[in-house]
Amino acid sequence: MELLHSFHTNRRKLIGALAAVLVSTGAILSAAPAQVQDDPMPSWNDGTAKQAILDFVAATTKEGSPDFVPPAERIATFDQDGTLWVEHPMYTQVIYCLERVPVLARAKPELKEVEPFKTVLSGDREAMAKLTMHDLEKILAATLTGMTVDEFSAQVADWLAKSKDARWKRPHTELTYQPMQEVLQYLRAKEFKTYIVTGGGQDFVRVYSEKTYGIPPEQVVGSAGGTSYSYDSAGKPILTKEPKLLLNDNDAGKPEGIHLMIGRRPLAAFGNSTGDEQMLEYTKAGDGARLTMLVLHDDAEREYAYGPAQGLPDTKVGTFTQTLYDQAERDGWLIISMRKDWKRILAEGN
Amino acid sequence: MELLHSFHTNRRKLIGALAAVLVSTGAILSAAPAQVQDDPMPSWNDGTAKQAILDFVAATTKEGSPDFVPPAERIATFDQDGTLWVEHPMYTQVIYCLERVPVLARAKPELKEVEPFKTVLSGDREAMAKLTMHDLEKILAATLTGMTVDEFSAQVADWLAKSKDARWKRPHTELTYQPMQEVLQYLRAKEFKTYIVTGGGQDFVRVYSEKTYGIPPEQVVGSAGGTSYSYDSAGKPILTKEPKLLLNDNDAGKPEGIHLMIGRRPLAAFGNSTGDEQMLEYTKAGDGARLTMLVLHDDAEREYAYGPAQGLPDTKVGTFTQTLYDQAERDGWLIISMRKDWKRILAEGN
Repeated sequence: MELLHSFHTNRRKLIGALAAVLVSTGAILSAAPAQVQDDPMPSWNDGTAKQAILDFVAATTKEGSPDFVPPAERIATFDQDGTLWVEHPMYTQVIYCLERVPVLARAKPELKEVEPFKTVLSGDREAMAKLTMHDLEKILAATLTGMTVDEFSAQVADWLAKSKDARWKRPHTELTYQPMQEVLQYLRAKEFKTYIVTGGGQDFVRVYSEKTYGIPPEQVVGSAGGTSYSYDSAGKPILTKEPKLLLNDNDAGKPEGIHLMIGRRPLAAFGNSTGDEQMLEYTKAGDGARLTMLVLHDDAEREYAYGPAQGLPDTKVGTFTQTLYDQAERDGWLIISMRKDWKRILAEGN
Repeated sequence: MELLHSFHTNRRKLIGALAAVLVSTGAILSAAPAQVQDDPMPSWNDGTAKQAILDFVAATTKEGSPDFVPPAERIATFDQDGTLWVEHPMYTQVIYCLERVPVLARAKPELKEVEPFKTVLSGDREAMAKLTMHDLEKILAATLTGMTVDEFSAQVADWLAKSKDARWKRPHTELTYQPMQEVLQYLRAKEFKTYIVTGGGQDFVRVYSEKTYGIPPEQVVGSAGGTSYSYDSAGKPILTKEPKLLLNDNDAGKPEGIHLMIGRRPLAAFGNSTGDEQMLEYTKAGDGARLTMLVLHDDAEREYAYGPAQGLPDTKVGTFTQTLYDQAERDGWLIISMRKDWKRILAEGN
């Protein structure tokens, strides 16, 4: 049995390695049906959601179509947390901020006796759950501001390289949704510019957006604080992150941020929570063909299930209310059901 | 003589028309020396400035060069007023604001009796020259805020189509510098992303940036006010321009704005006044080959002459101090002399 198991394991590894070589060299398995090769979104089940994406792209990119849009105007915006990657049990950036507190306390031991840092350092999850919004703001200010923008990028990159999600035991940047990666790639292949429009911190997401999503830093719109320009002791110019919020990129802040940072109305917008409502409204209100979609987390087994729309469990992280669900039905926004629409959930090794 | 003159004039016109056809169809005059066709910047005289641009592009884009930079990181930023187009005798956007006051007064006759609008409406230039900064802010607030972003774009587009520069009797958008248009095009041909980074209003410049410079709205960074998201009487989402400054994109605000809007340090930066000092410092402080240049307006005959650097007349519009000139020499920023470096100044009909 041991030998047989070993044989099967090695055989599987061999097939995996072979497939990887074939994929990486662009070779095509002649036995594979042609339609598999032609499908730009192979991780999607056939259905309304997938068809809507294909139809929208055809309508806006085929010359002669009444809804044709020139490439320069093809803008698609994507919320990140819960839309492009896993946001439960907690937003990755919040985990970062909490895990950064012990590092701060090593540099500044006096923090160990000061709240809310004392509670975070205690590791007492019940006490941490009782922290107020004001407490959280103190933690965000201490971990996201006060350093230069280059220092901050290095701190985030360092953490991302080491930290793993508790459930999957994989780096957070590997917990992106394969079906959404396919949408990003498909839209870019059709000359759309893909943007992240996130309530998360712009500087945080920019550290990994290019590698993780193929989205360059200049196409990340997020909550953004001010910086101040000065010189270090060697006279070299530096930009320091200040605790001054310039853009709260949630709710109405999303269309406001889109105007500030992009200056064009998107043709397509993807979200998953009430924080995306105004971005979808704003997108849909433009002329011609528009695509507005919401990811519904209804797959407790493969990922998570939360709403409270459609009787799903309530949550404070990525809330999708029944009101939002009803608005989607009324306004022609489409629901992506993780359970029904996605063949697989997580992307592998990016 | 009259006949001879007429013949020469017509001959010149004919040759001009023929050349235009050949250029527009991409045909190459076989008699023309190859180097003329190969020169990406034909409006520049040979010299230090032109050579510095060519050398920088070669160093950063040739595979194998020690200073090679991947295309994704090739960012070049350009101040607008006085760097890409004429800024004297007054910034175009300020002319817009002043010329917009009579339009406002027709809609709101009560303004006719309120300062500073009363003075602007009087047309008394001496009185207008005495307006304070506070007065100017009232005029900017009244003409640049309070409307939706779409209404504002339409108002600016309408004005640009009608208004002409007093000296050249041509639309303002035709008063761009041909040599700088060539730099923009050359850098883009070498896979640089070209950005405008202007102290002027971001929403103002975005109206014409694509048509005038080939720079899309999302690559315009400028002074930016907040907007507020709401709904019109038909329930359609609107963004209204608010009198709340988010980014003053001058001086230290330029590197701060570059970080906010682009998130990468430029490889090349072009300016012409003290307001560009920090942008050039920040650009030059990066590793590897960097190009930092300042346009010196030293051509009173073909354009304007102002400094007060190098004994040129002093000005409040686009001030280029001797201190800035000295810093340029010390830090390896290059001076572009309009008089010596540019064969021609204005671009034609864009």
